[in-house]
Amino acid sequence: MPQLRLALAQADPTVGDIAGNAALVLDRAAAAHAAGAHLLVLPEMFLTGYPVEDLALRPSFIEASRNAVVALAADLTDARLGEVVVMVGFLDRLEDAPDVVGRPRRSPQNAVAVLHRGSVVARYAKHHLPNYGVFDEYRYFVPGTETVVVRVHGVDVAIAICEDLWQDGGPVAEYAARAPGLLVVPNGSPYERNKDDVRLALCRRRAAEAGCTLAYLNTVGGQDELVFDGDSLVVAADGGVLARGPQFAEELLVLDLDLPLADQERLVEAVTSAGPLPAYPPLPAPTYERLSDPAEVYAALVLGLRDYAGKNGFRSVVLGLSGGIDSALVATIACDALGPDAVHAVSLPSVYSSSHSLSDAADLAGRTGLHYRVVEIAPMVAAFVDSLGLTGLAEENVQARVRGTTLMALSNSEGHLVLATGNKSELSVGYSTIYGDAVGGFAPLKDVPKTLVFALARWRNDDAAARGEVPPIPEHTITKPPSAELRPGQLDTDSLPDYALLDDVLDDYVEGDRSAADVVADGFEPALVERVMRMTDGAEWKRRQYPPGTKITVRAFGRDRRLPITNAWHESAT
Amino acid sequence: MPQLRLALAQADPTVGDIAGNAALVLDRAAAAHAAGAHLLVLPEMFLTGYPVEDLALRPSFIEASRNAVVALAADLTDARLGEVVVMVGFLDRLEDAPDVVGRPRRSPQNAVAVLHRGSVVARYAKHHLPNYGVFDEYRYFVPGTETVVVRVHGVDVAIAICEDLWQDGGPVAEYAARAPGLLVVPNGSPYERNKDDVRLALCRRRAAEAGCTLAYLNTVGGQDELVFDGDSLVVAADGGVLARGPQFAEELLVLDLDLPLADQERLVEAVTSAGPLPAYPPLPAPTYERLSDPAEVYAALVLGLRDYAGKNGFRSVVLGLSGGIDSALVATIACDALGPDAVHAVSLPSVYSSSHSLSDAADLAGRTGLHYRVVEIAPMVAAFVDSLGLTGLAEENVQARVRGTTLMALSNSEGHLVLATGNKSELSVGYSTIYGDAVGGFAPLKDVPKTLVFALARWRNDDAAARGEVPPIPEHTITKPPSAELRPGQLDTDSLPDYALLDDVLDDYVEGDRSAADVVADGFEPALVERVMRMTDGAEWKRRQYPPGTKITVRAFGRDRRLPITNAWHESAT
Repeated sequence: MPQLRLALAQADPTVGDIAGNAALVLDRAAAAHAAGAHLLVLPEMFLTGYPVEDLALRPSFIEASRNAVVALAADLTDARLGEVVVMVGFLDRLEDAPDVVGRPRRSPQNAVAVLHRGSVVARYAKHHLPNYGVFDEYRYFVPGTETVVVRVHGVDVAIAICEDLWQDGGPVAEYAARAPGLLVVPNGSPYERNKDDVRLALCRRRAAEAGCTLAYLNTVGGQDELVFDGDSLVVAADGGVLARGPQFAEELLVLDLDLPLADQERLVEAVTSAGPLPAYPPLPAPTYERLSDPAEVYAALVLGLRDYAGKNGFRSVVLGLSGGIDSALVATIACDALGPDAVHAVSLPSVYSSSHSLSDAADLAGRTGLHYRVVEIAPMVAAFVDSLGLTGLAEENVQARVRGTTLMALSNSEGHLVLATGNKSELSVGYSTIYGDAVGGFAPLKDVPKTLVFALARWRNDDAAARGEVPPIPEHTITKPPSAELRPGQLDTDSLPDYALLDDVLDDYVEGDRSAADVVADGFEPALVERVMRMTDGAEWKRRQYPPGTKITVRAFGRDRRLPITNAWHESAT
Repeated sequence: MPQLRLALAQADPTVGDIAGNAALVLDRAAAAHAAGAHLLVLPEMFLTGYPVEDLALRPSFIEASRNAVVALAADLTDARLGEVVVMVGFLDRLEDAPDVVGRPRRSPQNAVAVLHRGSVVARYAKHHLPNYGVFDEYRYFVPGTETVVVRVHGVDVAIAICEDLWQDGGPVAEYAARAPGLLVVPNGSPYERNKDDVRLALCRRRAAEAGCTLAYLNTVGGQDELVFDGDSLVVAADGGVLARGPQFAEELLVLDLDLPLADQERLVEAVTSAGPLPAYPPLPAPTYERLSDPAEVYAALVLGLRDYAGKNGFRSVVLGLSGGIDSALVATIACDALGPDAVHAVSLPSVYSSSHSLSDAADLAGRTGLHYRVVEIAPMVAAFVDSLGLTGLAEENVQARVRGTTLMALSNSEGHLVLATGNKSELSVGYSTIYGDAVGGFAPLKDVPKTLVFALARWRNDDAAARGEVPPIPEHTITKPPSAELRPGQLDTDSLPDYALLDDVLDDYVEGDRSAADVVADGFEPALVERVMRMTDGAEWKRRQYPPGTKITVRAFGRDRRLPITNAWHESAT
């Protein structure tokens, strides 16, 4: 059987930075060439970054992408890399298609270009456009209708893109009839918990359906709320895993495949080299161990923050360090993402802060080495309370807002990105102060329920201990009962159910979109279900005080509810 | 020819309030019956409100809607209204359809039910699902595939929904072959400037295509960022306008139509009454004058605010009144929407505020009768500046944030909705302070460029004068040069181009999505275009300091850009 050395580039593009992403392609092509690879694949829409959202509707952006792919083919040849066949995702358009009502202007397409010896020798456009969860591809793209097979060193290589693999009866079924030797699938598939098992099963099913080896390549990196986890896979037609990439890390996976010789009579869309290569000694196949569940989530949070800060030009972050578990975990993530020298933590005690708030915060600072300072908020709070005669909830909230204003003032003065420290359980039920603790350009725990916050803190400490390092999070921060400390003796359990119970109901109601009756049938107390659903529906006062358009999305690495702000729907559990 | 008395209910539902919306249907049915109407039509998805966003993906919400339409049929009969044929939009689902990857769970449909004598006698599901601009219907619905004709008093009445009308080759083409006497089209069509002319031309074209009279009924009311303008139309096959509803107001339009007798041999989906009515004397057809362009925009702003506040349970609003044009216009809109007794304006002078800021604000308060108070921000600002040693931009911003915190404290104490007063020009280029003047649950001028702010202020004053009333906005507020007053002698023109020029370029770049080269070719200075595009792309520091998921959308009554926050794309004009 012919051999082929395949290079899969798990790489991290920047949305909109077409020149920078093209430079990354050249860099990976040089590495692939140095490793002796014959075929290099890059992820879905790598040249533009992904997802580009409404940039896809901007005609000059479409043309910039189309021009860049042509220029890239020439640049590869100029760099003496033209013999490597390069498959790279980009933003294309369907030519000569009229603009009609309801179809995106200029008919943009989510496409892959095949580059060889200075030319674009073939283009494939994605057939199936996902329009659910975090995807809105009917808004942006016109579907492709053609299959594309390229003959490379005597092997027929078929191309599909991401969602094409998920749809029964999609192009994979068509490819089966064309008997390719290899099916290459570039993806931009965001991380969700436990998704890697689903992907592997899917790849095995489609490899069997196509009757050939399947190479599944995924992007890696953070883009706004999404984190792409890499975790690329190569699966044989019999389901055997031939190679697997790392999670949450860039890597050039190079592996040798023995693939069936193409029938030379069969028509293909492009031939880069008709006959097979002389036999050569193969390299060992790369494989990486899977991360444990907490390690995986933690890695996603670190990469998401690192890329959000880095791609947006922030060199440092600032956050309020309360001594509590949420801000301790955020500080630890920030240190792991950016290094402790780039992390500025501020203790912002009020008259209601307990002594352990300061000591626990200082303890964490000592353990991690981040920059630490204390700003007493009493003078600012007193100025508001005295001027406006505030009491009760208004006085509680003004403390949180003085903290938010203080962090933003430090951001303005020193250039840091402000990190918000709220977790998903709090945000789901509205237990936070708008323009107060909700202040921040990035909220690392926005998708992390409180019980998982505890689990991640324990995992991070245990992992450090296992490596003989100092656990970063003080034990007292993990064991003390959570409190917002906005009035004397306040505890979260004054306002909220026990977090284990709360998270369990939220998982059914928010992640599962299950009815009140279903949740009650699961054995939860109707009164508890009613209480949680009312709090969630009715994070309403909060939602309604946000400007329309700045919605709170409630998402768990892929589960993204888009609810109206003005919404009178409430389903009763009692 | 048979006669038919048609009632079109331009009415204002509340999203999620299925019981309340059903009660509105009963109310309108009673009014239609009292007026002798035979057929009553209500808008698209009236029973659930529109758009319901991810509520459509909640199985218990779908069932609630389906059950409600059955109960409504019975309730109409119980109220002795069962003889009126009622067509009402609701959320249905395609039965017996399997759940598959990428299709909304339970196959929800955007549908119309036909109710008569206690039963649902027919159901129509929308064929064409808009997924552009503010619409995401591929996310929510499964398309219908069938046409539906109901015979009412000897007239064949066909049904289409909203986008069905906009698509060439849609169900209207199929209906032409079925020769109906009337085509009824319920809509949820949001207001855009100058859209009414487009709608009229479209209705004429489709009436000609269907070969029959066309009744276009639109919702009225505000829902989050959208405002539905009513403006319903009845057009004959020859293009003549038979009736037209008011803009931005609820109304039951009742009119008599002479329509062709149905061929009794022709199959229809339901027959409520096969033969024509005895002749009766017709009523005069209702028509309403079109509003002028500024009157129309102003009415949209008033209705949008009234419904946002009312449907979310706010009885009053609070805003900062600076003496400038933006807050003066917002205060006036609020007084017109809710009455001056529900409007609380606060002057928040700093050490940099000019004397006319206070006198102009007080002048407006006197003219409108709203509640007015003065809160000096100097003590709170001094507490921050002294504690943190703030200078420059950080000191400027802290003033705006103290104002935001003060307004939120008053909201917490007194229960008002906070109104943000920023306009679209400022927001587009990032000329505002996050957590400062951007604070607020509703921003009436978010889609109104500065030049239009001036035009609306002048129009509102002239309109008052023409009615012999006191113009609400002080002349000095309109004529003085705009300033944020965050440092001595500051003017907007220190940081921004002249607003007329800025708005002109923004219109090309944001509304038109035109390239830098195109805008320059229009005669603008390349350096100016470059500056505005850089400011707009790069409201970036601002956008990046918003939490991902809380994006700034830049929209002009329908033009809604959804851009990545992390986005390195910049197109140069120089």
